[in-house]
Amino acid sequence: MSGTIGGVSLSTHHPLVDGRTTESPLVTAYSGRRPERLPVWFMRQAGRSLPEYREVRAGVPMLDSCLDPDLAAEITLQPVRRHGVDAAVFFSDIVVPLRLVGVDVEIRPGVGPVMGTPVRTADDVARLRDLGPLTPERLAPVTAGVERTVAALGATPLVGFAGAPFTLAAYLVEGGPSRDHLAARRLMHADPATWSALMAWTAEVTGAFLEAQIRAGASAGQLFDSWAGALSLADYAAHCAPASSQVLALVRSLGVPAVHFGVATGELLVAMRDAGADVMGVDYRVPLDEASRRLGGATPLQGNVDPALLGAPWDVLEAHVRDVVERGRSAPGHVVNLGHGVPPETDPTVLTRVVELVHSL
Amino acid sequence: MSGTIGGVSLSTHHPLVDGRTTESPLVTAYSGRRPERLPVWFMRQAGRSLPEYREVRAGVPMLDSCLDPDLAAEITLQPVRRHGVDAAVFFSDIVVPLRLVGVDVEIRPGVGPVMGTPVRTADDVARLRDLGPLTPERLAPVTAGVERTVAALGATPLVGFAGAPFTLAAYLVEGGPSRDHLAARRLMHADPATWSALMAWTAEVTGAFLEAQIRAGASAGQLFDSWAGALSLADYAAHCAPASSQVLALVRSLGVPAVHFGVATGELLVAMRDAGADVMGVDYRVPLDEASRRLGGATPLQGNVDPALLGAPWDVLEAHVRDVVERGRSAPGHVVNLGHGVPPETDPTVLTRVVELVHSL
Repeated sequence: MSGTIGGVSLSTHHPLVDGRTTESPLVTAYSGRRPERLPVWFMRQAGRSLPEYREVRAGVPMLDSCLDPDLAAEITLQPVRRHGVDAAVFFSDIVVPLRLVGVDVEIRPGVGPVMGTPVRTADDVARLRDLGPLTPERLAPVTAGVERTVAALGATPLVGFAGAPFTLAAYLVEGGPSRDHLAARRLMHADPATWSALMAWTAEVTGAFLEAQIRAGASAGQLFDSWAGALSLADYAAHCAPASSQVLALVRSLGVPAVHFGVATGELLVAMRDAGADVMGVDYRVPLDEASRRLGGATPLQGNVDPALLGAPWDVLEAHVRDVVERGRSAPGHVVNLGHGVPPETDPTVLTRVVELVHSL
Repeated sequence: MSGTIGGVSLSTHHPLVDGRTTESPLVTAYSGRRPERLPVWFMRQAGRSLPEYREVRAGVPMLDSCLDPDLAAEITLQPVRRHGVDAAVFFSDIVVPLRLVGVDVEIRPGVGPVMGTPVRTADDVARLRDLGPLTPERLAPVTAGVERTVAALGATPLVGFAGAPFTLAAYLVEGGPSRDHLAARRLMHADPATWSALMAWTAEVTGAFLEAQIRAGASAGQLFDSWAGALSLADYAAHCAPASSQVLALVRSLGVPAVHFGVATGELLVAMRDAGADVMGVDYRVPLDEASRRLGGATPLQGNVDPALLGAPWDVLEAHVRDVVERGRSAPGHVVNLGHGVPPETDPTVLTRVVELVHSL
């Protein structure tokens, strides 16, 4: 059995060809068609907003929880059970492929990913390469986690999750989270050859991480370029898009839709789509009708309820969700989501109510 | 004696009518004309990149140094002496007016401004109002600092410095620095009346702060909306621009050019200009020719050398500065500056070299 998703033909070895999720509202909307039910899921739906998440995570460091297949599957499934969302997103972290390949990285609570040693020179990049490729053996905990998740999900699709090469490179160069990403942006201009070697490496490891999730049963792959908003269009296009293109092309070659998302990237929307995305995630700053206009009305969209309004009175939030859905009609397909991740302090009953509202529209 | 600056007629009581800085390259460019020498200064030029700054600041908390007139004047003058820049910018902090009016705020090194109690309700805003207005008596240390600075500057203009109402409100609501400004953005939707009362108050205190600097001799007033990039255009226009307009109108009514700057605000450029700015500061993300195009070619620009390149090899930085200057020619007036503040680790000799380069172009 074979078919096409989003104009991409499916290779016969992919679980999608079983038809498990082909007709799901999510995959239908990602393919640029109108499903019977408007699909909705939330970035960071699996996480701190859920008491059942805080319970199973108690005492377990973040990266350990990502690499425990049973725990990662359980956490991934929790919001699907609770909210009735139309997709699961694999519970992981964008630095997981770094950890799997042997980079000294930890996630400090309240801070974020912190590297043992920043990567700033050609020698530093050579040392990354010396760690060897992200083999299927190293990826085994991810593959096992996805397989368990997919088996439990049935007809509900799983979205594979990975950080974009620039965002990973920014963490590696800065050594941790940064507001301006000065060191990363300096390196791309001061030593373009080293930068380009670093981007080739991050594209490889994050690509392998996403590929493993898709081969194990994810029905789509979403590339998160969290820090791309720090870049000018010229820097993005010249120094970052080529590596992202490589990962997006890999996702498409596996026969599933490639979703691309960045924060504060309204100015980069077209370049990010043109890097090879089937679907563009839009953050809360740009209304979906304006995003669709920029994209020539040709690209399915995902987004973009403002997470700030999850804590507003229901009538304010409801009016906003209806407005997002209305504006989303200008795109050839629309998956409702947030314009950024679920804030940890969100009341989960509000998320459930948003799902019910979206499904009623 | 009287005259006009940027089409605004000068009130006769203003120091500018002495003609001290009217013909300076800075004021000429701010007025939309081409001075003989291309003017240049740097946001955060007075600060940690200078050893002489670190020396005089040693052991003095940030806000105390802002409120010591001799120290603030000395720090303001240091980069003018060292780099030969075409303007001083008054050394201060955007939360200084909060401190002067009695808000419990401190600046924690490595963190930023932290409030004793966040402001989130109508009662909280009423308590701010109960602190009373920012009177000339309370502003005395600022006035004295500016007077001493201006006396030493001679024909070199001083740019007055203040935070925009939204950025101040965001600090007050969040209680400190924040990545997404969720609480502030929630408040504007959840309780627009309280939000609007808060914005009216921040506009008043930051306006009084800027007015004091201009009355004491500043030749321009720059409003810094550091966090406006967190906003959609619709939220900015509806919930923030009116308060900024009030401050910009005050600056103009005092007969000096109003400069408006935000970070990651390419999408808001036109709205920020239309709020009543004579000059738009542009961050490093949007090239100046594109910024000028968005603004209809009618607005003098300030910017936008990428601070990340201050640490790149000189030939890379030089090519970038030349490109910025070339693109700036599309605007009716151009003041060279950075697209964000000087990073603390910047080698100050590089800044001096940039000034020499700009003056040679």
